[in-house]
Amino acid sequence: MTNTEQALALHKQWNGKLDTTPKCQVKSREDLAIAYTPGVAEPCKAIAQNKEEAYQYTIKSNTIAVISDGSAVLGLGNIGAEAAMPVMEGKAVLFKEFGGVNAFPICLDTQDTEEIIRTVVNIAPAFGGINLEDISAPRCFEIETRLKELLDIPVFHDDQHGTAIVVLAGIINALKVTGKKKEACRIVINGAGSAGIAIGRLLLRYGFPHIVLCDKTGILHKNTPDLNWMQKEMMELTNLEGKTGTLADAMAGADIFIGVSAPGIVTPQMVSSMNTDPILFAMANPVPEIMPDAAKKAGAKVVGTGRSDFPNQVNNVVAFPGIFKGALEGRASQITEEMKLSAALAIASLVPEEELNEDNILPEAFDPRVAETVSAAIQKELSQNVG
Amino acid sequence: MTNTEQALALHKQWNGKLDTTPKCQVKSREDLAIAYTPGVAEPCKAIAQNKEEAYQYTIKSNTIAVISDGSAVLGLGNIGAEAAMPVMEGKAVLFKEFGGVNAFPICLDTQDTEEIIRTVVNIAPAFGGINLEDISAPRCFEIETRLKELLDIPVFHDDQHGTAIVVLAGIINALKVTGKKKEACRIVINGAGSAGIAIGRLLLRYGFPHIVLCDKTGILHKNTPDLNWMQKEMMELTNLEGKTGTLADAMAGADIFIGVSAPGIVTPQMVSSMNTDPILFAMANPVPEIMPDAAKKAGAKVVGTGRSDFPNQVNNVVAFPGIFKGALEGRASQITEEMKLSAALAIASLVPEEELNEDNILPEAFDPRVAETVSAAIQKELSQNVG
Repeated sequence: MTNTEQALALHKQWNGKLDTTPKCQVKSREDLAIAYTPGVAEPCKAIAQNKEEAYQYTIKSNTIAVISDGSAVLGLGNIGAEAAMPVMEGKAVLFKEFGGVNAFPICLDTQDTEEIIRTVVNIAPAFGGINLEDISAPRCFEIETRLKELLDIPVFHDDQHGTAIVVLAGIINALKVTGKKKEACRIVINGAGSAGIAIGRLLLRYGFPHIVLCDKTGILHKNTPDLNWMQKEMMELTNLEGKTGTLADAMAGADIFIGVSAPGIVTPQMVSSMNTDPILFAMANPVPEIMPDAAKKAGAKVVGTGRSDFPNQVNNVVAFPGIFKGALEGRASQITEEMKLSAALAIASLVPEEELNEDNILPEAFDPRVAETVSAAIQKELSQNVG
Repeated sequence: MTNTEQALALHKQWNGKLDTTPKCQVKSREDLAIAYTPGVAEPCKAIAQNKEEAYQYTIKSNTIAVISDGSAVLGLGNIGAEAAMPVMEGKAVLFKEFGGVNAFPICLDTQDTEEIIRTVVNIAPAFGGINLEDISAPRCFEIETRLKELLDIPVFHDDQHGTAIVVLAGIINALKVTGKKKEACRIVINGAGSAGIAIGRLLLRYGFPHIVLCDKTGILHKNTPDLNWMQKEMMELTNLEGKTGTLADAMAGADIFIGVSAPGIVTPQMVSSMNTDPILFAMANPVPEIMPDAAKKAGAKVVGTGRSDFPNQVNNVVAFPGIFKGALEGRASQITEEMKLSAALAIASLVPEEELNEDNILPEAFDPRVAETVSAAIQKELSQNVG
């Protein structure tokens, strides 16, 4: 059986990848009278008096929703709600397996921004957090921003921030390997969708002053036509020199290339034109913007991809389970920029100096310390903000 | 510790009564590549080509949503979404424990009919069925009716139909005990909310021609002021003689009293005024409309209540788990009136003639045959309709 056939066969066998499992037993009339009527009225009354008690008596304390509208699923595109379910179930499985966080997949039968916002607000009471997933740009920016305003539980679009956090963690370590300084680094991000924009924003926040965003049309600048509102915002913060031209023009002399774009669009010549010891994160999936061996041959010092069969895999799974674990345990009302930076530093710290090298800048997905370390970083950030 | 204290303490200890549990393991890169990317793309593509495949590859085949707006929770009233959660979690536990059906609680932060309908439609793709719960009348009628039109999965308001099914099952057996014939029986239903109306409708459907609905104002008739649209509909089908007066007037000469109303409002005199061998279902909780011993002393032949400490408990748990089990396994697109009648007959059939007596008209909640028998009845009904 091929991998493809096996994946299909196992998904059929599982018939859905999640069960809902009672934490209490109901084997007798006495059990029933506690877990259901009349006993259940007691926690209801306690919560009716003080909503915060929901964290004591209900699943809210340790359950999040994984929500998608199916508009930008993996590399498959806009496949709709039902077809997005296997991914959202998988994500829920990872939340539980890696972070101990209960997660339930909700796929929405609407792609209207206002409808999505209203629906998520309406179902929020049961949940301690909202993980948005595979929602296309630029709607994802507005949906996340508005939900953060409307809800008092963490809202996190993983395609944006999970990716950005892991990229930043990798770059922090790549700087150590190459001896580069963030203030002097010139960064090119190719792809100006949800991930590219979020990476740009987090890198700016971390203190990289020189970032240029590119897309299919080449370098983005203030006068590029048809920018969406979020891209326009980014033009106030990136490409401050007003460069124009192609991706090749952008890469000439750059220190870091970050690709969240398309297979094979970076040539060895482009890599050779970069500054010494260039760092490349070529994350197009399953085929990177340039294959690691070709990039290395052209002079790249550090190369990361989205794939597990090459060194330096940029895998969100080292971020999102620990982030929500920490946010739930610390009862965060949102995931702040500071938490994202702390999470990136925590992930970077899991590769100790003595093990750090050009082929080892990020922890393994299955490193059991990861979620705990990221969670602790989030909770430390929370306690510092309170204190 | 009192029962009340114990219920609160255990709910705190459980900290939510449900876990989401992976059905697949993710212990290695290989596992990850099957349950998540890249393998997960295969079931996604299959469903994108044919939505029906969601029943093969996702939780839709065996997962329902338990949905409430917190507007009519137990006897507690309108306590809101968060405070309703312990009940909805408990209901989800019962679905799993009694019927093997995965259920997830969703409590809505809106009590607007249109918002509720839109929200449920929007989140429906992940689910194989919708159990509505503790939504106040008359909104519950419109919400259920509209959702049944809009969705192609079963939608079932348990407060209405679960209760009606179990009451009908009890009455079917009470008729056998008393030798009464449905055509001749005069029925009084006290309480014209969601349960009272649904009971009335199912009893009409079963073939009881003489039903009178009462509420706090007494006997309902066509000229009663301030009836809601559903009560007005019922006035075309009940009280065809146009009776007026008090509950006591209604009960004089009646064969069956069904109370879904308030504690202690039925007097021994009212029971004595009924036809010979009267049947009473006094289901106000926790204190019935009349206590069983008082009713018996006044001449009642069969008395059922909502309580487990008296004979003949009318408990929805003998209905809803099996109904959804059968509907999911048979891939019903809705729960029809015929299915409800079949379910009632199946429940009644679980008390064999030789065990049937005035204190034993309904199966025990923990009778392990119940869900299987009800499920089989639903599936038989489905296959007959197809055939």
